[in-house]
Amino acid sequence: MNTEYGRLLEAVRTKNPLIHHITNYVTVNDCANITLAIGASPVMADDINESADITRISSALVINMGTLNERTIDSMLASGKAANAARIPVVFDPVGVGASVLRNQTVARILDEIKISVLRGNISEIKQIAGMQSTTKGVDASQNDLISTGDAAAIAKKLSADLECVVAITGAVDIIASGEMAVCIENGHPMLSGITGTGCMCSSLIGSFCGAAPDSLFEAAATALLTMGIAGEIAFENAGDKGNGSFRTALHDAVSRMDVDTLIGRAKIHEA
Amino acid sequence: MNTEYGRLLEAVRTKNPLIHHITNYVTVNDCANITLAIGASPVMADDINESADITRISSALVINMGTLNERTIDSMLASGKAANAARIPVVFDPVGVGASVLRNQTVARILDEIKISVLRGNISEIKQIAGMQSTTKGVDASQNDLISTGDAAAIAKKLSADLECVVAITGAVDIIASGEMAVCIENGHPMLSGITGTGCMCSSLIGSFCGAAPDSLFEAAATALLTMGIAGEIAFENAGDKGNGSFRTALHDAVSRMDVDTLIGRAKIHEA
Amino acid sequence: MNTEYGRLLEAVRTKNPLIHHITNYVTVNDCANITLAIGASPVMADDINESADITRISSALVINMGTLNERTIDSMLASGKAANAARIPVVFDPVGVGASVLRNQTVARILDEIKISVLRGNISEIKQIAGMQSTTKGVDASQNDLISTGDAAAIAKKLSADLECVVAITGAVDIIASGEMAVCIENGHPMLSGITGTGCMCSSLIGSFCGAAPDSLFEAAATALLTMGIAGEIAFENAGDKGNGSFRTALHDAVSRMDVDTLIGRAKIHEA
Repeated sequence: MNTEYGRLLEAVRTKNPLIHHITNYVTVNDCANITLAIGASPVMADDINESADITRISSALVINMGTLNERTIDSMLASGKAANAARIPVVFDPVGVGASVLRNQTVARILDEIKISVLRGNISEIKQIAGMQSTTKGVDASQNDLISTGDAAAIAKKLSADLECVVAITGAVDIIASGEMAVCIENGHPMLSGITGTGCMCSSLIGSFCGAAPDSLFEAAATALLTMGIAGEIAFENAGDKGNGSFRTALHDAVSRMDVDTLIGRAKIHEA
Repeated sequence: MNTEYGRLLEAVRTKNPLIHHITNYVTVNDCANITLAIGASPVMADDINESADITRISSALVINMGTLNERTIDSMLASGKAANAARIPVVFDPVGVGASVLRNQTVARILDEIKISVLRGNISEIKQIAGMQSTTKGVDASQNDLISTGDAAAIAKKLSADLECVVAITGAVDIIASGEMAVCIENGHPMLSGITGTGCMCSSLIGSFCGAAPDSLFEAAATALLTMGIAGEIAFENAGDKGNGSFRTALHDAVSRMDVDTLIGRAKIHEA
Repeated sequence: MNTEYGRLLEAVRTKNPLIHHITNYVTVNDCANITLAIGASPVMADDINESADITRISSALVINMGTLNERTIDSMLASGKAANAARIPVVFDPVGVGASVLRNQTVARILDEIKISVLRGNISEIKQIAGMQSTTKGVDASQNDLISTGDAAAIAKKLSADLECVVAITGAVDIIASGEMAVCIENGHPMLSGITGTGCMCSSLIGSFCGAAPDSLFEAAATALLTMGIAGEIAFENAGDKGNGSFRTALHDAVSRMDVDTLIGRAKIHEA
């Protein structure tokens, strides 16, 4: 199985897929740089007069709700429909759902009008979308929502079946589910939650791998989260206790230097 | 007195307050990362359809005019009023006031319609708001506006009394005034003015400390500026003459690694 | 000739010109930091209610189409006209032209209504504007469009004559043309294309040098591209194979530490 992840890493580097992002202005630079670091090409375009055009020349679309605004909701929907029509994978990152009515309504519209390929969120966001009791802490997961890996996997499996898409929950342990199949990833480092944008960058990496392997969405999501988790470990090994700035730099370094042997050799992934 | 700053540092790390920013797209990533580095949580949301909702779940609001636009002015006002109604501290950073009629009018509206907790600006911005002759140099302080610490403290005290809020002037020497009380901080390093966003990050740190200690706004502002000044010194000690990129990384490192002993031991703060 | 580049580097550091950017939210932070690193001051303002006012107090205007949207197109036109009226240099970066009808139409409007001082793009963008067959790969140059330095210089010369402005094509070899005169620069490093924003930062540097030397636009563009190319080489020497994050930090370091001797001593520039 793990050789499949290596194959996907080679695929993204060989194919250099163009990844269209409609995303937030907080972490957009990190998303662009991590997309380049893994071997894909980012393009960010959110005006309604071009967003669908840009989607059509791309290999995947990433919709990220981080700094949602009225102007870009229409662009998200137009691009999502264009992607669906052209069978381009759509990654959806419902940042901060639960924190406002606007975010809840937008998620409902997007899930209603667009066929999502991979949904990625933290546990608070995924519980909210699954219709369960959840606590919001802005755009970060609430401590109150932390549950066992088994419980999280059950939620992810059910939501995956309901939405007919791959569901990824990122956190200390990552879960990826596609219908009855689920894996968990135990790579990573606590410092990943100390810098902004690691969730968004996970979504960009998922988009990058989906763009390179649109017929292997589950494996694409797993390879993306393995990459980020292992890169987090390597970043801490290299930056040590220097602090958040050095860790961030080292994280970008580690993603850009990721190779097949490291990815396969360090992967802590198993059925959930 | 200095032990109070240590207490506030512990408070922000324990309470992990949510800090709502309506801010500019130039330095927003730095603001998010510095908020995390000090131990708070950032949330950026500027759409009029959710901004007040997001403010209400937050512990402080930071309004920053860096890339002002018509769409977000209404959100600033709506969030400011929501914060006032819920007794949530409001930090106001009037970036570039004096550079355009739009900025001047917006500052007038915000000060008229919202009760500000802490106003932070550079000397050019504060002089402009105080109705004094000032020179604009875009978003940076003009050399022409530099005055003695005593004169700056007098301006800050008067403006603080007029606006009934804490006033902070940042520069080579920082001033914080609340009515007749004023302190100056002599920590810092010239390289802080060589990278973008250090002023904005000061406002984010003030918001973080205000969110953790809403009944100690003056001390919160002082702790924030001490943190940035001392972190600037440590950053230069660690990055040396490597250049602006390394200094910036080291600055984020130093804020994230700040501890009570360092903060108290290195503080150069006295009455102004 | 090379001493002229040294003179311009000294000029930007002495004059500290204010450079107004209407630019994208992906790389705007890098643009602000690189503008500071070279010795100029950035100001970003894109609201139609102030953009022309901000241009009038600035020494150069940089228009960058990276995340084009309807709201800012009007601001670009208003600021461009204000710059023309006040004889302030205008640098135009037609990011992603060819990728959408909106971008093509906007470039046509800007070139029709505004007198551009320096046009800078990658080979795909410049071929598109020159009315030649080109392939779009989002915002990056397409491999299909790569041509010989001689052919690129011929295109740049012709376009420069047609548009009556300096034309700069950046890539593995940079070309700068003004009418019949053209130079090529062979400084640089392949890792410059592995991080986002190096093209945008080139435009910001061109703006910075144009702001310091508005009567030497050709030399200003050349000095900017020499600075970026040489800084890329130094960044790789210092960061080595650590990866993209370290390279980016080292790039900002190298621009901020650039001195006249390094600039002149390492310049690989000759007639094209």
